[in-house]
Amino acid sequence: MKGAILVLSGPSGAGKSTIINHASDAIGEYYFSISTTTRKSREGEKDGVDYYFVSHEAFEEGIKAGDFLEYATVHGNYYGTSLKPVNEALEQGKLVIFDIDIQGHRLVRAKMGDFVTSAFITPPTLKELEKRLYARATDDTSIIERRVANAKEEIKALGEFDFVIINDEISKASKEFTTIANAARLKQNGEALEKFIKIWDN
Amino acid sequence: MKGAILVLSGPSGAGKSTIINHASDAIGEYYFSISTTTRKSREGEKDGVDYYFVSHEAFEEGIKAGDFLEYATVHGNYYGTSLKPVNEALEQGKLVIFDIDIQGHRLVRAKMGDFVTSAFITPPTLKELEKRLYARATDDTSIIERRVANAKEEIKALGEFDFVIINDEISKASKEFTTIANAARLKQNGEALEKFIKIWDN
Repeated sequence: MKGAILVLSGPSGAGKSTIINHASDAIGEYYFSISTTTRKSREGEKDGVDYYFVSHEAFEEGIKAGDFLEYATVHGNYYGTSLKPVNEALEQGKLVIFDIDIQGHRLVRAKMGDFVTSAFITPPTLKELEKRLYARATDDTSIIERRVANAKEEIKALGEFDFVIINDEISKASKEFTTIANAARLKQNGEALEKFIKIWDN
Repeated sequence: MKGAILVLSGPSGAGKSTIINHASDAIGEYYFSISTTTRKSREGEKDGVDYYFVSHEAFEEGIKAGDFLEYATVHGNYYGTSLKPVNEALEQGKLVIFDIDIQGHRLVRAKMGDFVTSAFITPPTLKELEKRLYARATDDTSIIERRVANAKEEIKALGEFDFVIINDEISKASKEFTTIANAARLKQNGEALEKFIKIWDN
């Protein structure tokens, strides 16, 4: 497989989507991995765009069949990444971008480490994160408090990532993201190397 | 320390210097590590530019004093990298570029892995390497044969490097090198992370 994987993690409110949108022209063709979930779709969410929405039974059949690269349960709902579209994109030589949490990062790295580059995206301070979450006003206070508490835990896993992007200023963060995405494409993997060595000494 | 290390290895004739020169405007300020050696300087070589030329005794005193980040003996001469200028450049936040062999890469990674990104630069084929070495006509046939034999061995260590640059076309190779060098600067290191986490949750 010729493609590469870029895992992005970081607290909700870190600006991951904004950064990807800003950088999308500069990073070339990529496949943004869409998660599968058993939770109900919210207003405005589209199946196959925001998530693949499936039933509890269908998800558990997928687990049994080994269809998931990683999955987890959050508040009684399953969330996971199907292997098939990821492998297809890798076969096509695409960069596959994941927006998953630190547990997901661990699982993807354990299974496909050879292809993985990872970056943790964070606001410059915890206070700034809180400010942004209240400013965007899409969540209840209780949800914001939970997100902030999660962020406090997640930041401890910073050392597991190849890169940390401190999103202080969007143009700077997007530029860093572009560099990291382009480097991720260049990361070598065992299979590609074996092929090269065969051609090389011939 | 805020800087980063980029180790370049690859056979003589791979085009390392040409690539660095091509990319030097695009990669920003860097310190190119100059090796220390006990071999006699050749015509045109300058002390402090091509190498630091020192006596056998001075080199061995340096070894005893722990002055070298890495060193090796090649055909009876010592070659090594002094720690001091490397640490100074890292303190100044610079990217330190090494052009060392695969053994040197192993030693630098073992001692300063937290700061290291590495790339192996190679011509597309062994035949092309031979062609280039004969074309540049700076070495005797016996030396070229030794370089080719070395290259055959070195290529086996490809898997130890973060990146492989196949220097088929200089503009493409320089562009890849630029991406890798800029990503190397963004690589996180433990010390910087600790500092960040202190500021973050305050």
